[in-house]
Amino acid sequence: MSILPIAWAYDHVRLIDQTRLPVEFSYVEIRRAMDMVTAIQTMIVRGAPAIGVAAAFGIALAAQEIDTEERQEFLEHLETVATALRHTRPTAINLFWAIDQMLNTARQTVGPMGFLQEKLIEAAQNLAVDEYHTCVTIGDQGLACLPTQPQRLTLMTYCNAGALATAGYGTALGVIRSAHNAQRLMQVYVCETRPRLQGARLTAWECVQDRISATLITDNMAGYCMQKGLIHGVVVGADRIALNGDTANKIGTYSLAVLAHTHQIPFYVAAPLSSIDWTLSNGSQIPIEERDIEEVYKIGDQWLTTPGIEIFNPSFDVTPARYITGIITERGVVPPDQLQQLQP
Amino acid sequence: MSILPIAWAYDHVRLIDQTRLPVEFSYVEIRRAMDMVTAIQTMIVRGAPAIGVAAAFGIALAAQEIDTEERQEFLEHLETVATALRHTRPTAINLFWAIDQMLNTARQTVGPMGFLQEKLIEAAQNLAVDEYHTCVTIGDQGLACLPTQPQRLTLMTYCNAGALATAGYGTALGVIRSAHNAQRLMQVYVCETRPRLQGARLTAWECVQDRISATLITDNMAGYCMQKGLIHGVVVGADRIALNGDTANKIGTYSLAVLAHTHQIPFYVAAPLSSIDWTLSNGSQIPIEERDIEEVYKIGDQWLTTPGIEIFNPSFDVTPARYITGIITERGVVPPDQLQQLQP
Repeated sequence: MSILPIAWAYDHVRLIDQTRLPVEFSYVEIRRAMDMVTAIQTMIVRGAPAIGVAAAFGIALAAQEIDTEERQEFLEHLETVATALRHTRPTAINLFWAIDQMLNTARQTVGPMGFLQEKLIEAAQNLAVDEYHTCVTIGDQGLACLPTQPQRLTLMTYCNAGALATAGYGTALGVIRSAHNAQRLMQVYVCETRPRLQGARLTAWECVQDRISATLITDNMAGYCMQKGLIHGVVVGADRIALNGDTANKIGTYSLAVLAHTHQIPFYVAAPLSSIDWTLSNGSQIPIEERDIEEVYKIGDQWLTTPGIEIFNPSFDVTPARYITGIITERGVVPPDQLQQLQP
Repeated sequence: MSILPIAWAYDHVRLIDQTRLPVEFSYVEIRRAMDMVTAIQTMIVRGAPAIGVAAAFGIALAAQEIDTEERQEFLEHLETVATALRHTRPTAINLFWAIDQMLNTARQTVGPMGFLQEKLIEAAQNLAVDEYHTCVTIGDQGLACLPTQPQRLTLMTYCNAGALATAGYGTALGVIRSAHNAQRLMQVYVCETRPRLQGARLTAWECVQDRISATLITDNMAGYCMQKGLIHGVVVGADRIALNGDTANKIGTYSLAVLAHTHQIPFYVAAPLSSIDWTLSNGSQIPIEERDIEEVYKIGDQWLTTPGIEIFNPSFDVTPARYITGIITERGVVPPDQLQQLQP
């Protein structure tokens, strides 16, 4: 059974609560648009493509909240919610892309407001379904570009770019899933991904659910595993890709890319075209979110360090294109310098 | 007031319990040699030079436990304890070095067994005092070799190679302490050092105690900090250095060295000569301890991942000499390929 982090359930959105996994598998029901804003901020739902889908449903919920036949008033309410959604997380571009898709649908749909309300739910659902199919295609495209030797590969992944980070299946973990399904996967090394441990909590959980052979390591063991010759390839997701291929992704991705480069291990970024920011020539302009330092100094109620210490908590970094072997999209795999060929 | 992790207290050894820091500052009284074996195994005391000093006191305690005038029996008991101590931790060579020093003292001392007992306590105390002075010298030697520009440097360190890891003052953190005392330190970036968080727990605590401006980061943020130009130099400790300069140190040191090399940031190893294994031509022969996987999947009582996932927990890695700018010892700073000049 596939893992669906975001689902429409007749009159509300059902989210898997990703802050509680893997200790507890539970759902959160989102009935109001502003609760979706909070869910994205607090990372009940996270992962660039999943944030996009969640925001789309946020707009759909906003449409249900307004009882008017004034088209202008209706659209203004959507704009207000869109602004709140845009301010939740700055780095992943899928958020902005999905909101724009939804607002365009609203603007382009004629008819009574009740019809728009239905249309927007349908649009969000379509966006989720498209995202799912996009991931399956990314998985298969990625599988086709992996090293041909050995037959069974050991791959490394980072953070969670899996079913939970998308609308199911996953981007980077989608590639790994496709390799697993094709019996081309020996083992996947999962970096725990501090501070929020999305690798240990979410990717490890997905692998155990789907019986994918996985080994969890702390982030600082990645270099050692590469040095020992254990890793044939690295596949990560993306929060935003610039036109030249520079890629923002979870903090630590850059370190991993440098290490892969040093060990001549191919390093792939797997992401839908909606993760590409066609307006940015390079990665230096991608905004990097800094999150609450509590993420670093506490796990649950437990303090990991001493009061009085300063803490830095950047949530993403940018990997320069030169460290990326290929960008795996639903339209094919390209070296970063040929990304522009995919521009719609 | 200086932090002394190991002290002789009339008839027992007083250890700072490093497993409880920084939540609780407490001492453990060690009265029997076999309790010192346990203290080293469970990391109540840790850090290569500190393990050496602790083992020396373990031998001294062993000598107090045996009531005989039979010299052979006396020495055999010391050998038995020495064997148990040698089996506690495989990677740090200071352990083996300090045990050999103590056994040599026992063998070379003539006189009644009561005299040997006193002599061995004295020898362990001298070893601790020497270790302290060695660290201060390492600190000053290191300070002299740091980049001259800018006046106030931002350095990065890893794990805990501080007062707690030695007999006070520290090796890598000794260099940082000397830089701080000479007003040449702007800031030290401390990597938390998963899985046991010696950076977050111990180095951060030492810095706060001594009012050294320090910023804690997760290990996967090191590359980002370097990429942003925040770091002027990296200083780490060592558990064992081979003749060619290859250096075993806490897991993740290798990744940090590769990152420093990529960013053309000088990377220093600070260690006493007793950390050098003059019998090993290179680092490939250094045994790497693997520790209990519980260190990775749990913090306190809290699970960080899901049951059913495989886990890998190597505790050290080896940084090839080519990534090391200089090895800072009490006899001077040398590039790794000139290490042999220091051989006594």
